[in-house]
Amino acid sequence: MWQVVEADLMPISIGAGVLGTGGGGNPYLGYLRVRELLRSGGTVCVIDPEEVGDDDLLVVVGGMGSPMVSYEKLARGNEETAAAQALERHLGRTFDAIAPFEMGGGNSMVPMIVAATMGIPLVNGDGMGRAFPELQMITYLIYGGAPAPAAIADERGNHVVITEVLDAAWLERIARAATIEMGGHAGLATAVMDGAFCKRSIIPHTLELARSIGQAVLDAREHKHDPGAAIIDIAGGRQYLRGKVTDVHRETTAGFARGHMTLEGLGTHVGRSIRVDFQNENVAIWEDERATVTVPDLICVIATDTGEPITTEMIRFGSRVDVLVLPCPALLTTERALAVVGPRAFGMELDYTPAC
Amino acid sequence: MWQVVEADLMPISIGAGVLGTGGGGNPYLGYLRVRELLRSGGTVCVIDPEEVGDDDLLVVVGGMGSPMVSYEKLARGNEETAAAQALERHLGRTFDAIAPFEMGGGNSMVPMIVAATMGIPLVNGDGMGRAFPELQMITYLIYGGAPAPAAIADERGNHVVITEVLDAAWLERIARAATIEMGGHAGLATAVMDGAFCKRSIIPHTLELARSIGQAVLDAREHKHDPGAAIIDIAGGRQYLRGKVTDVHRETTAGFARGHMTLEGLGTHVGRSIRVDFQNENVAIWEDERATVTVPDLICVIATDTGEPITTEMIRFGSRVDVLVLPCPALLTTERALAVVGPRAFGMELDYTPAC
Repeated sequence: MWQVVEADLMPISIGAGVLGTGGGGNPYLGYLRVRELLRSGGTVCVIDPEEVGDDDLLVVVGGMGSPMVSYEKLARGNEETAAAQALERHLGRTFDAIAPFEMGGGNSMVPMIVAATMGIPLVNGDGMGRAFPELQMITYLIYGGAPAPAAIADERGNHVVITEVLDAAWLERIARAATIEMGGHAGLATAVMDGAFCKRSIIPHTLELARSIGQAVLDAREHKHDPGAAIIDIAGGRQYLRGKVTDVHRETTAGFARGHMTLEGLGTHVGRSIRVDFQNENVAIWEDERATVTVPDLICVIATDTGEPITTEMIRFGSRVDVLVLPCPALLTTERALAVVGPRAFGMELDYTPAC
Repeated sequence: MWQVVEADLMPISIGAGVLGTGGGGNPYLGYLRVRELLRSGGTVCVIDPEEVGDDDLLVVVGGMGSPMVSYEKLARGNEETAAAQALERHLGRTFDAIAPFEMGGGNSMVPMIVAATMGIPLVNGDGMGRAFPELQMITYLIYGGAPAPAAIADERGNHVVITEVLDAAWLERIARAATIEMGGHAGLATAVMDGAFCKRSIIPHTLELARSIGQAVLDAREHKHDPGAAIIDIAGGRQYLRGKVTDVHRETTAGFARGHMTLEGLGTHVGRSIRVDFQNENVAIWEDERATVTVPDLICVIATDTGEPITTEMIRFGSRVDVLVLPCPALLTTERALAVVGPRAFGMELDYTPAC
């Protein structure tokens, strides 16, 4: 068990931005909230999955909504706690620990707020090892966790418990519709599980991974090293392209930011041109009319000079970026997982081939 | 206490169509289901509000969704029961009786199915004394009943409990969004209350009223009497116009059927022309550029020869109809109620003036 300290927050925020693969929403507001919480005496205790008791009762929390909304409609910060507490009341039981939904963008910060507010530990891991756009794409649900009961809550005090659903995709549909009605953002609590199941289905140690990646970026900045190389030293994978953004197409439809960006190589990569498709997150790299990298592998776009992760909402014409490809966690590459998070789940008629 | 028998069903269905004032959806399927239920030994026990125990626990049930959908997407019939049972599980208590949502169209039949399936009595009354398009428009909620917890359920097995809402209008928004996602129709259970509150807020004896109106129509048909006059003998009010439909504009937007119809007088009414505006239900009569009748008064369009109530979805160019205006229940004409179901709640800059 360890406690999150203020010095952890910036690294976690940067690392979760990298793992967010262009999505996951704005981490900055969550960062400020957790910092404020720590400064006012709040405590975020982190336990490794190995430390979870087999009979402990856990709940998965995260923010739900289009990442674009997280820049325009400020969350109050208590939505996810309200959702978890609504589930506690519905079940007539209390939770022993919080399991993060995704280690991408703002959702890296949200579970810390819930854990501190409820006074229970946070598990060092998450359900995606990155960010994905839909809630059925978490390993807890892919590997048989119960989508219902789930709860969503908004900042006004509206609480909804989804008590029974056919499957996780139906939970996504119903929760998404209610979230849109709530103004595009809501706190979500789902996948109530015991500790034994959590250990089998969680992607472990990703909070530490995010912190290590972020720390490596900060160190590289300080020592004028290459931040992209520093990320790869920690996370594995490879630099796919160093270049600049020459074109961005983006539209927000049905709560998702969809589009693609074109990048031209620079330096040793001059002459190469690639397209990165995104659906909230970056989902594929196309080069020479071939998809060379696809989900669930991580396609991370960072600023070449600072290593700052760039989300699909913030990417701009002329940005100088490194496109990194990081390997995805093993729990995302089973047949069962690829059916939910592989290229076909994103509408691409392709089989997944590991890119690193 | 009395038991519904098969011979009651057609009169109730016709009477609820009249009270539905053009809305309330298709009663026919519900009629068939209740008939089947009675034939297979099911029992629908009806108690008057006066017979409800002050400490009894009641729940309000009805179908939710655009009435147009009720003609195109067949409900399975168990949605409202599933919603009420989801609320029972959420509360950890069982209900003692069922209170109807609205005595209009299909929602006249739905509570009978729930009461028979759950083996508890149905209260002779409802929350509208007619049909209205939105769920905050029921007297139980207008007079201070709790909008949450509420439950909605679809025919597939998806159940949602809305555990806390700011107010009834928020319940309407969230439940509507989930209903649309569920395919446009869902069963609803809301306004959990004790018997003492039910007695104060229910519009009493409307199941009997619907049956009496329907029986009067059937009798008039048999004896070649004027069905419109027979309805007025029972319900009060007056014939506003006998004429034919010369124009209908209708569009389905955001789950509502909105539009208006133009009617030209026939016989002693030759030379008069009126417009009836509807939002699922008929909401106003305009004549000589003046709103002469508005909600909450009942504007009922029936076939002149048969007395068959004609819904806003079914009205056609050339139809020969009587437009009847029936007085609305006193519980709908208080200042508190008019704020929710008066002309301004439907976007008309008008004060309500009783038309009969």
